[in-house]
Formats: sequence, C-alpha cells, structure tokens
Amino acid sequence: MKRRLQEIAEAVGARLVGDGSVKVSSVASVVSSGEGDLVFVEDERYLASALASSAAAVIAGEIASPASSLASGKPLLICSHPKLAFARAARFLRSDSGSKESEVRESALVRPSARLGARVMVEERAVISEEVEIGDGSKVGAGCVIGPSVKVGKDCEIYPNVTIYAGAILGDRVIVHAGAVLGSDGFGYVRDSASGRYEKFPQVGRLVIEDDVEIGANSTIDRGALDETRIGRGTKIDNLVHIGHNCRIGENVVIAAQAGLSGSIVIENNVVLGGQVGIGEHARIEEGVMVGGQGGILPNKVLRGKDGVFWGTPARPLREYLKQLAALAKLGKR
Amino acid sequence: MKRRLQEIAEAVGARLVGDGSVKVSSVASVVSSGEGDLVFVEDERYLASALASSAAAVIAGEIASPASSLASGKPLLICSHPKLAFARAARFLRSDSGSKESEVRESALVRPSARLGARVMVEERAVISEEVEIGDGSKVGAGCVIGPSVKVGKDCEIYPNVTIYAGAILGDRVIVHAGAVLGSDGFGYVRDSASGRYEKFPQVGRLVIEDDVEIGANSTIDRGALDETRIGRGTKIDNLVHIGHNCRIGENVVIAAQAGLSGSIVIENNVVLGGQVGIGEHARIEEGVMVGGQGGILPNKVLRGKDGVFWGTPARPLREYLKQLAALAKLGKR
Amino acid sequence: MKRRLQEIAEAVGARLVGDGSVKVSSVASVVSSGEGDLVFVEDERYLASALASSAAAVIAGEIASPASSLASGKPLLICSHPKLAFARAARFLRSDSGSKESEVRESALVRPSARLGARVMVEERAVISEEVEIGDGSKVGAGCVIGPSVKVGKDCEIYPNVTIYAGAILGDRVIVHAGAVLGSDGFGYVRDSASGRYEKFPQVGRLVIEDDVEIGANSTIDRGALDETRIGRGTKIDNLVHIGHNCRIGENVVIAAQAGLSGSIVIENNVVLGGQVGIGEHARIEEGVMVGGQGGILPNKVLRGKDGVFWGTPARPLREYLKQLAALAKLGKR
Repeated sequence: MKRRLQEIAEAVGARLVGDGSVKVSSVASVVSSGEGDLVFVEDERYLASALASSAAAVIAGEIASPASSLASGKPLLICSHPKLAFARAARFLRSDSGSKESEVRESALVRPSARLGARVMVEERAVISEEVEIGDGSKVGAGCVIGPSVKVGKDCEIYPNVTIYAGAILGDRVIVHAGAVLGSDGFGYVRDSASGRYEKFPQVGRLVIEDDVEIGANSTIDRGALDETRIGRGTKIDNLVHIGHNCRIGENVVIAAQAGLSGSIVIENNVVLGGQVGIGEHARIEEGVMVGGQGGILPNKVLRGKDGVFWGTPARPLREYLKQLAALAKLGKR
Repeated sequence: MKRRLQEIAEAVGARLVGDGSVKVSSVASVVSSGEGDLVFVEDERYLASALASSAAAVIAGEIASPASSLASGKPLLICSHPKLAFARAARFLRSDSGSKESEVRESALVRPSARLGARVMVEERAVISEEVEIGDGSKVGAGCVIGPSVKVGKDCEIYPNVTIYAGAILGDRVIVHAGAVLGSDGFGYVRDSASGRYEKFPQVGRLVIEDDVEIGANSTIDRGALDETRIGRGTKIDNLVHIGHNCRIGENVVIAAQAGLSGSIVIENNVVLGGQVGIGEHARIEEGVMVGGQGGILPNKVLRGKDGVFWGTPARPLREYLKQLAALAKLGKR
Repeated sequence: MKRRLQEIAEAVGARLVGDGSVKVSSVASVVSSGEGDLVFVEDERYLASALASSAAAVIAGEIASPASSLASGKPLLICSHPKLAFARAARFLRSDSGSKESEVRESALVRPSARLGARVMVEERAVISEEVEIGDGSKVGAGCVIGPSVKVGKDCEIYPNVTIYAGAILGDRVIVHAGAVLGSDGFGYVRDSASGRYEKFPQVGRLVIEDDVEIGANSTIDRGALDETRIGRGTKIDNLVHIGHNCRIGENVVIAAQAGLSGSIVIENNVVLGGQVGIGEHARIEEGVMVGGQGGILPNKVLRGKDGVFWGTPARPLREYLKQLAALAKLGKR
C-alpha cells in the first residue's frame, strides 16, 4: 500500500531530507525503478544514478548530503545502514491495515475439529486435517496438506503444495516455501544380521520450528525418531536443504541451498553453513562458526567456535585449508 | 493399539521377565517416556535410568538381570538385539487388526477404469488416473497424482503430494514420502551440431520399485529412457536423493540424503552410499562397498567389493584416502 | 500415432532403404523392441542384432549397407547421426494432428480473469490464479498451482504438482517436471547487528524462462530480488537443481542433477555443469566451459572459456587438477 515518506522514515529510523508527503508504494532496484518506487544505495558511487532515476525517493547512507537531494529534487532517507532500512521499508510497504477477514476458499477442505484463528486465509484445495490449529493472520497456500494435530502460530505464510506431517509445531511468523516437507520420517533402520534386511526404526518424535524461521522451496526437515527435531528462532534455511531427525539447530543460523544434515547434529546459534555443506551424524558446530560451500564435516566431529571459518572436506580451519591448497598446487607444478 | 507384553515378547522373540499382562501402546525414548510406553536400552549404563523411568516396560540385552526387574517392579523383555526387537515391537504396536474397510475420501478423484483392492485408503484430493491398480491395504495420501497405468502393490504407504508418472510399478509394502517424484523423464538429449540445440532423447521406459523399498521426501527417480530403472527389494532411500534413468539398484542398498546417481549405474546388493555421494554414468559399485559422505565416483568407474570402504573425490579406498590426507596436512605445515 | 516409414524418413532427413509403407508407432531399444517399434544403432557391432530383433525398422549410420536390409527383410533409415534422427523420429511419433480441443477438467479451478489459449489442457485439481495467461496447446498437470499473473507460452508441458509463484514468465515449448518450484523467493537477508537478527531483503523481482527450456523434477528456481532471474533459450536443467535469485543463464546450457547456483551468477551460452556442481555468488562461467561433477566455484570467480574443462573444488583446469591428483597419490604412497 502507499505510504508517505514521513511514515517510512519513522518506521525504519531514517532521517528525512526533502518532501515527506511524497508517497511510495513499492521497492525496486535503481535500474528498474519507476514512479512510486523507493530505492537504496550503499555505495557513494551509485548515489548520482539513484538520484537521476525515476524512483520517488532514495535511502542512502551518511555519505549522502542534503544538498544532493535539493539539487535533484528527490527526497532522501538517510541512515547508518541503508540496506537494512530498505529491507524494513519493504516490509512496512507490504504490511496491511490488519483489518482483513478470514477466508477459506470454497475448494479448501478443513476438518471440523481444526481451529482457525482470526484473519486466517486457506487457499484453494488445501487440506487441514483433524485437530490442526492455525494462529491469527496465518495463510495456508493452495494444495498444502497439513497433517493431524499440527500447530501453526500467528502470521505464518505457508506457500502452495507444502506437506506438514502429523504433530509438527510451527511458531509465529514462520515462512515455508512451496514444496517443502516438514516432519517427515527420519532415515533410521536396524539391520537384522540374520536376513540382511533393514527393519524401520520408529520415527514417532516431533518437529518444532520456532518463531521467525524461513524455510526454502522443496527443503525437507525430518521429525525426531523418538524425541524432537528443533529449528531455533530466526534461523533461515534456503531451498533443497535436508535436515535429519533429532537435529537441534540454534537461533539465527543461516543454512544455504542444498546443505544436508544427517541425524542428531547440534548447530549452535549464529552459525553460517554454505551451500551443499554436508554434516555427519552427531557432529556439533559451535557458535559463530562459518563453513564454506561444499564443506564436509565427519560424524561426531566438533567444530570449535574459536577457529571461525572452516573449508573443505573434511572441514579444516580456513588458514590450514589454504596452506594445503597452495602446497598441492606447487606440488602439481613440479 | 494396546498390546500385552506377553504378545510383544512372542512377536519380537524376546524373553519376558515380570508381569506379561502389563499393556503398552507406544514406544518412546527413556527421557520422554510416560505411562504405556515401551523403551529400550542397548548399553548397561542406561539400564538403571530406564528402570527408573515412567515407561511401562524395558527391552534390554542379555546384560539385564531378572533381579533388576524385580527390584524396580518393571517388566523386562530380554533379547540379543534390543534395538531390533524395539523396532519390531514398534511395528507390532502400529499394526491393526486388518479389519478396516476401504475408504475413498469424497474429494479424491478415482477414474472408473482404476482398480482398487480391499482396505485401500485414498485421501483428500488424490488423483488416481486411468487403468491404475492399487493393491490391498495400500494408502494414497492427500494431493498425490498417480499417473495412468501405474501399479501399486499391497500395504504400500504413499504420503501426500507424491507424483508418480504413467506406467511405474511399485511392489508390496513400499513407502514413499511426501513430495517424491517417481518415474519422471530422464535427462537425455542429443545435440544437433548444426544448430547447437539439444533434441530430447525419448524417455519412454519404465520404473520398477520392488517390495519393501522406502523412498524419502522430495526424492526423484527417473524412469528408463527405453528400458527400465529398477530399485531392488528392501532398499532404503533418504530425502532429496536423485536416481537417473536406467539405473539398476540392488537389494538392501542404503542411499543417504542428497546422494545423486546419473544414468545407467549399477549398484549391487548391500551397498551403502553416504549423504551427498555423486556417481557418474555407467559406473558400477560392487556388492558390499560403502562410500563415505560426499564421495564422488567418475563415469564408467568400477568400485570393487574387496576394497570395502571408499572415500573422497574421486573415491579411493579409505586407507589410501587417509594416507593422502595425512601427507597433505604435513605438506601444509612446512 | 502410427506413421509410415516414408513419412518418418522425410521428417528426420534419412535415406529409406526397403518398404516405406511399413508403419511404426513407437520407439524402443533393440532388446525390448516389439512389433511396430523403431530402433536405432550407432555402432556397426550392434547392427546385426537390430536387424534380427522384432523391431519394424532400424535407423542406422552410413555403416549400414542396403544389402543388409535386403538380407533381413527389415527396412532401414540411413543417416549421418542416427541417435539424433531417432530422437526426432520419437518426437514425430508423439506429435498429434493438432486438432484436439481445449479441456479443463471439472475439478480444476480457473479464475475468471485467467486467459487460456486454444487446445489448452488443465488437469484435475490444478489452480490457475487471477490474470494468468496460458498459450495455445499448453498443458497444466494435476495439482499444479499457477500463481497470479503468470504467463505460460505455447505448447508447454507442466507436469503435476508444480508451483509457479506470481508473475513468472515462461516461453514456448517449456517442459517443467513434477514438483518443481519456479519463481520462489531468493535467499537474501540483512543482518541487524544490534539484535543479531536477520531482516528479509525484498524478493519482488521476476523469473523469465525462455523458449525450449526443460526443468527437472523438484528443481527450484528463485525469482530476482529486485530485478530478474533468466534462463536462456534451449537450456536443459535436471532434477533437484537449485538456481538462486538474479542468476542469468545463457542459451543451450546443460545443468545436471543437484547442481546448485547461489545468487547473481552469470552462465554464458553452451556451458555444461556436471551433477552436484556448486557455484558461489557473482561468479561468471564463460561460453563453452565444462565443469565436472561436484566441482566447486568460489564467489566472484570467473572461469575462462579458453580453459575448457574444469574439475575439483576450487575448480581448476582439468590438466592442472589431474597433475595435483597424481602428485597427491604419489605423496600418499611414500
């Protein structure tokens, strides 16, 4: 919806220079911006082109002088972290008045024992099973299948064709992208040495996803075997990520696309895992560790927070990895 | 359902110590156990806490003495492989009397030419196409799309939002988790050197999945190009695994999450592939080989069974890999 | 449908030897061929078995002499690139007369503002949202969810349970396999250093997929953050591939299964990426480069076309990689 710049400045904590009554309705990049768009620049070099663009206003760092606004006639929102302010402005522009009503599309199928909060949207063909609870303001996309006794918190957004197995619990403001599967059976078997066959180990635990988590398209998170799998508050998970049973992921963890965690892994707060990282069972990644893309961590391994950045398979502290790489390159030239 | 311990002891082949009339209804871990739960311990160190838990009974190894049962007042099921017995007990507790009736939910769509066996469950919004056959006791989850002429055996469980392409054949007791795609077109093209464009090679073969296979969430298995892709009896496949056209996977093979097999690969019986393993076309992995996580196998390569465990990219026998890793680490320290 | 060999010879540009009035209806491999099948051989060694098979006719290279046709009584289609001719013949046999009518299955849900072209097929339970455009001859599979304002070109085939987010644009003859997710939010956040929390960066750009692209099962392609993600004409993408926001993929690029591209990557025309290749953000892969399976490319890296084939992590020219591998193997034997 349209907002006055003055409102946005207040919402994101920026200093307004210029006409605060100008209205913007959306965000854009400088190159694609048009009337009514808000853009941002982090680098002084791009300020001039932002001011010359068709955008209605510019968010910029302290680099931007009020004089430049005057010269261009374009209002500025000045702040210390323009990209963060831009992200918040985008969220502010997306937010609505909150007065919308609940809507269950005619083709959706909601069991009578399910409890839907206020302002809940259930799109076409979604299936809401027995005893499900959906919190206020949440949206369930078309074709989703929400299994029995699942609990979804407030203001969640579940995109189409997501499957949530029975008993999973999602906090507030959780975003789940299309095709993701939450709470599926873990990969656990016991081999019968007599027959050579695998007997399925029971996978009857639960999955708990805390507030403000975002989960990418077609990612899969298994529930606990007997106990729980847990994804901590504020953690962000990209597309096609796999998280096995009994994993405990901390808060504000970032997991890039196609990373895979086998079972019973502990990831502490603020860890960053690059794309295609693979972690063996029972490993522990301490707070603040960053693992570079395609890094591999052996089962039972502990990556210490003091070592910071890890790289390679098996993952080594970056310094060590680079030395070995250099030595190998030298060796290959002999 | 509730079962007496005496019945369970007989079902799993354990020796009962204590009151066989005690009833249990579910399995749990020692820490989360409550009334009516059955737990297990493999390690003598945890026996005391299991006996002190709220569980109704404990499965334990020969380590457990009848005296400990007497002292705690908790019945024991003693056997040589407690984890296996526990897995079987869990299955026994899940099994029902077999008297249930077929149920096709009103919103499911079953073509008149499809043939459903006895005690078949078709959940909400599932689509069962022309000439499909579903065997006795099988369940098709909500939102599944079962293509024309697909055959599903007995007692299969297909979770929601699975897609099975035309003509695929599933054996008995096959479990397919949510979002999996079975029988899709393989990745085959012929390049026209004149135009530089790729012409699609026909992908019209079939996919055969034998009995007792389990397939993880969002995994994809392509059908044969002209002939068949086959997954052998008892093989277990984790989430987000890719299996290309014309692969022939043996029996009791274990494939961990995100492993990827390109086309025309042969995997013999009892092979174990770690997570994120990648295998090039026409490779052959002999019986009993184990490939560690992230291992990479080149096209046309044969991994010999006598070499046992392989690791790294390109995959080498473990001993060799470890030596090279040690040498590299040493070199990096110079 | 059934076609006379004479027609096929003309359609694929082959020289007919033998009875052109023979009819074929399908393609097969030599081993599985039956009555009415067309087979091909590339290698002289297999010509005899092809001629002795139950197939109705054989496509072969210039190796095949008219005499062999006479001796076997089986017609031959002779051409310089038999596999390409076979692929084209398969396409020709699949093509129909083009006279079919539009069909929207009763259980599909098409919003009144959507515009469907001629001969469009919308299968069971598919959801076609507001302002969607579907071109002539395109098919939308069962359970698909096509978001608002999506444009799909002519003669596209979208398999079941695909999700396309709002605003994505697909060209003509695009094939999308089951479970794929197109146009999902990219993985972009801004960290608030004060709270340690991640703020979602707006993901409001679009996704453009050009003509003749094929996308594998359960693959995910994110839309641009503010601008666009683009997949060039004729590019072929295998299963479980991830392509991040703002990537620009050229024409006739081949991306094998489980490869992953993070954001803002440029892939020039005619590049080939092996399975499980991983590429860091802002990298550029020049025209004609081939990256071997599991290769890893660091962020911001440029792979030069003159270096041809790359391998390993970090990806090196193949020659270099092989030398290093040999040196390491030698070192490990000391």
